[in-house]
Amino acid sequence: MNIILLSGGSGKRLWPLSNDIRSKQFIKIFKTEEGSYGSMVQRIYRQIKKADPAADVTIATSKAQVSSIHNQLGEQVGISVEPCRRDTFPAIALATAYLHHVRHIPADEAVVVCPVDPYVEDSYFEAIKKLGELAEKGQANLVLMGIEPTYPSEKYGYIIPEDQGLVSPVSTFKEKPDLETAKAYLRQGALWNGGVFAYKLGYVLDKAHELLDFTDYQDLFCRYDTLTKISFDYAVVEKEPDIQVMRYKGQWKDLGTWNTLTEAMGESIVGQAMMDEGCKNVHIINELGVPVLAMGLTDVVISASPEGILVSDKEQSSYIKPFVDQIDQQIMFAEKSWGSFRVLDVENESLTIKVTLNPGHRMNYHSHRCRDEVWTVISGRGETVVDDIRQEAGPGDVIVMKAGCRHTVIAQTELKLIEVQLGQEISVHDKQKSELP
Amino acid sequence: MNIILLSGGSGKRLWPLSNDIRSKQFIKIFKTEEGSYGSMVQRIYRQIKKADPAADVTIATSKAQVSSIHNQLGEQVGISVEPCRRDTFPAIALATAYLHHVRHIPADEAVVVCPVDPYVEDSYFEAIKKLGELAEKGQANLVLMGIEPTYPSEKYGYIIPEDQGLVSPVSTFKEKPDLETAKAYLRQGALWNGGVFAYKLGYVLDKAHELLDFTDYQDLFCRYDTLTKISFDYAVVEKEPDIQVMRYKGQWKDLGTWNTLTEAMGESIVGQAMMDEGCKNVHIINELGVPVLAMGLTDVVISASPEGILVSDKEQSSYIKPFVDQIDQQIMFAEKSWGSFRVLDVENESLTIKVTLNPGHRMNYHSHRCRDEVWTVISGRGETVVDDIRQEAGPGDVIVMKAGCRHTVIAQTELKLIEVQLGQEISVHDKQKSELP
Repeated sequence: MNIILLSGGSGKRLWPLSNDIRSKQFIKIFKTEEGSYGSMVQRIYRQIKKADPAADVTIATSKAQVSSIHNQLGEQVGISVEPCRRDTFPAIALATAYLHHVRHIPADEAVVVCPVDPYVEDSYFEAIKKLGELAEKGQANLVLMGIEPTYPSEKYGYIIPEDQGLVSPVSTFKEKPDLETAKAYLRQGALWNGGVFAYKLGYVLDKAHELLDFTDYQDLFCRYDTLTKISFDYAVVEKEPDIQVMRYKGQWKDLGTWNTLTEAMGESIVGQAMMDEGCKNVHIINELGVPVLAMGLTDVVISASPEGILVSDKEQSSYIKPFVDQIDQQIMFAEKSWGSFRVLDVENESLTIKVTLNPGHRMNYHSHRCRDEVWTVISGRGETVVDDIRQEAGPGDVIVMKAGCRHTVIAQTELKLIEVQLGQEISVHDKQKSELP
Repeated sequence: MNIILLSGGSGKRLWPLSNDIRSKQFIKIFKTEEGSYGSMVQRIYRQIKKADPAADVTIATSKAQVSSIHNQLGEQVGISVEPCRRDTFPAIALATAYLHHVRHIPADEAVVVCPVDPYVEDSYFEAIKKLGELAEKGQANLVLMGIEPTYPSEKYGYIIPEDQGLVSPVSTFKEKPDLETAKAYLRQGALWNGGVFAYKLGYVLDKAHELLDFTDYQDLFCRYDTLTKISFDYAVVEKEPDIQVMRYKGQWKDLGTWNTLTEAMGESIVGQAMMDEGCKNVHIINELGVPVLAMGLTDVVISASPEGILVSDKEQSSYIKPFVDQIDQQIMFAEKSWGSFRVLDVENESLTIKVTLNPGHRMNYHSHRCRDEVWTVISGRGETVVDDIRQEAGPGDVIVMKAGCRHTVIAQTELKLIEVQLGQEISVHDKQKSELP
């Protein structure tokens, strides 16, 4: 099975856990069977591999997410990197071209496209396998998954099937309705459109060549920023007469808001927190190293991260976006492919951060024009390279780097250091990469 | 006017702003006329000086608070340091002996004793002046302030006066009543006992010599840890037949819980925070450098500090103590006479803190047995002394101190540094002080 997982952009609706560089699919919030916490993307990837150990998974995403994906899923997973955001049709065309021209998947093999962030049970992936098989049979150009609605939702698009069979031709598509219309749809036997569909690779490749001017994957990649933003639904689905829908009945949740996300959490507290007996339907997610205490609250979500603290009535939390848009603050925490960093202190002419390097990893060899830096290694072992000179590094070692000096650290074991940046203009953009000698 | 302000112990009921080393009276939460924020102790001190610029103020407190008091009120204020906590009678006896033997206040001058933490209007201090004048006239051995109740409170003790005059003999004292009893007291014209009283210095000094075995202040100080814990009410007030009460009608609030404290706040937000229009009667006090966002909450207090985060229904917040007692965490922030420190990062074998030194101040000259330290100066100018060698220090300077090495930093301007502590056993008790050469 070939699967393209669409990994969407920055989500502010789960602030302070999601932000411009950390999308909701990377938040570790779901208790795994081993007792640790996993993210949406880790959960879905494990579910796919459980349904089909041989599944070929490609994640279509932006450059900003590549580090997080490698960090959470390992280096093996396929990634189709969009050079910039151009909506779902260009993204799916690019990923499809990638599968064909880079991964050499033949044109008659089926591909399933699925968002990376639904919260589903394992049977969903059995259904996805089946969707791929239907596409491969070629009875229709597109096979969609239609989710049996559990209530007349105003948040989803609807698919009206021609009949009540497990697999049926699609009669028509409907946009997000109001409540009364949604109720009417349900009476007609309509299904939710969860954005999951399958096709033969060649079908979308042909559509791409029809609509976009390119030769192969590499060419499409280079022209990507010239493409018009257009959704796959608008460019392909709505114009295609030959579409089937396959019903899926099972748990399917879109965890887009704190309200729906907390419903999916197995426990009410993640992180260091306490609540009194007066708390009803309260969820606390605390990524900080200090305790949260909640008393006498009802229907409230509390979320604390290095970026900030949200305390919200659960219903109200879906209106978070305009408030978060007002917050203009530097990124306080980020996962990178080599590890992570966290801002500890911000002053006018200094910035103190904690850097954690994963074993065997290193940061880019780089220098800064306008700031000096001081490293104090606090744990782990590794090697520093400063202006091409290599030296062993371990706890207590102090490395002073003046502006212009090239530097990196290579971790043998997990290595942590405190970095103090000093300068009148400290900016994330002041970074010149070099080749490590 | 001689005033003894009783500055009580560590309060957990305003966690996370108050803790074992930071009492509620030092929290900067009240907007001053100049637009900055002041603490309870700063507010009351300013009010006293406004009522009587010549007032001689002595703060009776524990050693742990001396730094905070000097930091907030300056070095001039008189402090009677209790070597250990022994309840109010020994504390008042010690402070009275201090006034007589150290400050040479004659025995026939009046002294007014007042808690450091009531939230009152300026007229309260006019009343206190009057209380002192009544005591000096000597018509009674003790003159108490009786606060006109605004509601039948169950939280306060009551004074039943013999008549309705401004100044009246006391008929009897009553412990904290239940609601019905409180209502009955109010019908009898009872007054709240706010713990404010005046006496001639010699009266309490005589009582002290009667009940405690000591010669003078220095002797009492040395014997202090052998004294029995006993309250002034129990030891003196309840046994004294010759007591007057003076009525006070005006704002008087005991800011002991988040509920009462937030009522006294001039504005609903202190620190970096936003709330949506759905928030009703919400107060946010945020000492962290990241934003708090509150949505759709009613009657809630949110308080965030380096020690932790409280989110509580206001009524419920008065039951905080048992929860805070469960929190066993190192102190994350402290004000010292020389400045302040804040813990930025805690690891098994390292601790990173930010140290801020006030201009002209220095920390003790000291060493550690079991840890190395690295300083990176991030702002300001000063001088370091390391194993008796003095050196200028400014932004970017890095000082490495191995275990056993004596060190301090003397700030010329406000000086900030990042200190990384490294060792297998990092403890606040591992500190050996030396004389600065």
